Amino acid sequence: MELGIGMFGDLAFDKETGKYRDAGVKIHEILEQVKLMDEVGIDVFAMGEHHRPDYAISSPEILLAAAASITKNIKLASGVTVLSSSEPVKVYEDFSTLDLISNGRAEIFVGRGSFIESFPLYGYSLDDYEKLFEEKLELLLKINSEENVTWSGQLRAPMNNQTVYPRAKNGGKLPIWRAVGGTPQSVLNAAKLGMPLVVAIIGGMPIQFKSLIEFYKQEYKNAGHDVSKMQIAVHSHTFLSNDPKVIDGYFHSYKSQMDRIGASRGWAPYTKMQYDGGRGKEGALFIGTPSEVAEKIAYIQDLFGITRFIGHMDVGDPTHDIMMESIRLLGEEVKPVIQPL
Amino acid sequence: MELGIGMFGDLAFDKETGKYRDAGVKIHEILEQVKLMDEVGIDVFAMGEHHRPDYAISSPEILLAAAASITKNIKLASGVTVLSSSEPVKVYEDFSTLDLISNGRAEIFVGRGSFIESFPLYGYSLDDYEKLFEEKLELLLKINSEENVTWSGQLRAPMNNQTVYPRAKNGGKLPIWRAVGGTPQSVLNAAKLGMPLVVAIIGGMPIQFKSLIEFYKQEYKNAGHDVSKMQIAVHSHTFLSNDPKVIDGYFHSYKSQMDRIGASRGWAPYTKMQYDGGRGKEGALFIGTPSEVAEKIAYIQDLFGITRFIGHMDVGDPTHDIMMESIRLLGEEVKPVIQPL
Repeated sequence: MELGIGMFGDLAFDKETGKYRDAGVKIHEILEQVKLMDEVGIDVFAMGEHHRPDYAISSPEILLAAAASITKNIKLASGVTVLSSSEPVKVYEDFSTLDLISNGRAEIFVGRGSFIESFPLYGYSLDDYEKLFEEKLELLLKINSEENVTWSGQLRAPMNNQTVYPRAKNGGKLPIWRAVGGTPQSVLNAAKLGMPLVVAIIGGMPIQFKSLIEFYKQEYKNAGHDVSKMQIAVHSHTFLSNDPKVIDGYFHSYKSQMDRIGASRGWAPYTKMQYDGGRGKEGALFIGTPSEVAEKIAYIQDLFGITRFIGHMDVGDPTHDIMMESIRLLGEEVKPVIQPL
Repeated sequence: MELGIGMFGDLAFDKETGKYRDAGVKIHEILEQVKLMDEVGIDVFAMGEHHRPDYAISSPEILLAAAASITKNIKLASGVTVLSSSEPVKVYEDFSTLDLISNGRAEIFVGRGSFIESFPLYGYSLDDYEKLFEEKLELLLKINSEENVTWSGQLRAPMNNQTVYPRAKNGGKLPIWRAVGGTPQSVLNAAKLGMPLVVAIIGGMPIQFKSLIEFYKQEYKNAGHDVSKMQIAVHSHTFLSNDPKVIDGYFHSYKSQMDRIGASRGWAPYTKMQYDGGRGKEGALFIGTPSEVAEKIAYIQDLFGITRFIGHMDVGDPTHDIMMESIRLLGEEVKPVIQPL
């Protein structure tokens, strides 16, 4: 099984200055962190996209390109590219260039976006939320698989026998994963297209996703795709330390971010009980000692039969030193245990 | 005076295979070349954008981000961003992220584009060639100078009290240069806006641009901008070697590319006489020994009073080793001579 780390570039809010932490400082920390991931054998790094003051990253591909120069083996993915409000030609060009720079390590995770601030920013209408994604995915997959693209849709200008350059390393084809939150229709579409699947399991209990993942497997098979090539990833909040005080302290970082997001979505304030519950054997939080986290990854591997686990690790902007230690532990202590699974 | 190097990522055509040289190999060569530029004290690297099989680079910002990680001092510019067919919010986000990664070394050169293949690719109409540039420049400058942007135009969705993140290092402001080919209206607009100017002088004689540059200076002053902050760059085809055979041989690389571009534009085949003429004292080609090139830069500095010279150096995809030597000579032998100018 592959082991990855995901991030959004969270910026902690400083009550004294009334500002979020400096995005430039954070970006340099992330680059150091990706370098360490590569050194300790983490298989993939997934960088998400937001367009808000409380996140450092709106252009994952720029960060990934900077990371490409200072890493050797780690795969570099967007997690996710909000495809609905992006330009598929530009997305392919950016990631194929990244692919050439990194000798074939680029991946795109496409999703519809849980955050929607990119829609008004780029001039798209939320009324077209579903149709935009559908059309742009169709176009991106076409650009990815065919050199000469002829395509037309309702919300984007047609393409007429055009090729997008440069072509990615593997015959022009980038790995394009479909990232989902839990919508069965999205899972069905991914299965029909034979796209690898990333399931974000953020709250509740992983077992609640059992039927969704079985549904994907069944529909993937029904569509006639090669089952030996099927790839399923789970992406969940993760944090590691051997120090119980650090794990307890991380609750505050975690809560600060969950409450900030929750405030605009009508969630109740996040509690220590939720945190501790999530950390329990059947909860969705992969937060604890390396052996606790390894055991939990083994549990969901057993439950779902996944090919990749991605630990999302910077919720609430924990400090650089404890991030580095968490990454080191995942690579050095968890990877050897779960790799054979 | 600042000294820079520009490139487009030209790919030589291999008659034996009937294909252009591998874009991935070229990209790795460019990254090595930028590293050398940084080491020998070149002040700025400008990477252009094309969307064709004969150029490796359609996403300069991705290449520049990869270069940011392996360089320390060199400024990293797009040369040019074809703004008419780009999304200003995305352009700002990409370059502000690059700016944070590179500790304030990002620059954008915006232009209307001499090549127009990006228009149908991104779904824009050539009928809107001028209006698109005008509107997008207005929006980009607004995003660059104001945190809260409210803007409306005819060809792009309006923005209503929105902020684009992350903000660049220098109070959110990126250096945005206006790159022109010689259209007086473009020069006038740049002067009125107080934008630094890049003049591409590719053919003919530099002295023909004298009145255009004087016009910019006058209009810049008339518009009330601070003359002590005025910046003017000249961007011209450049190549250096101490070996006359290499300089003679470079004619073939140069001709191959000029003829390929010329074929679609109705130019007559490029001749050795043009090459030798261009290399003469008053010609536009900065091709020769370090002392010849230094003398010529001094000549146009005397002619125009420029603050920056950018040598465009990979026309026709000369081999990696002679590119490296040309870069080394520009940094080690030309820079010390022209820097005090």
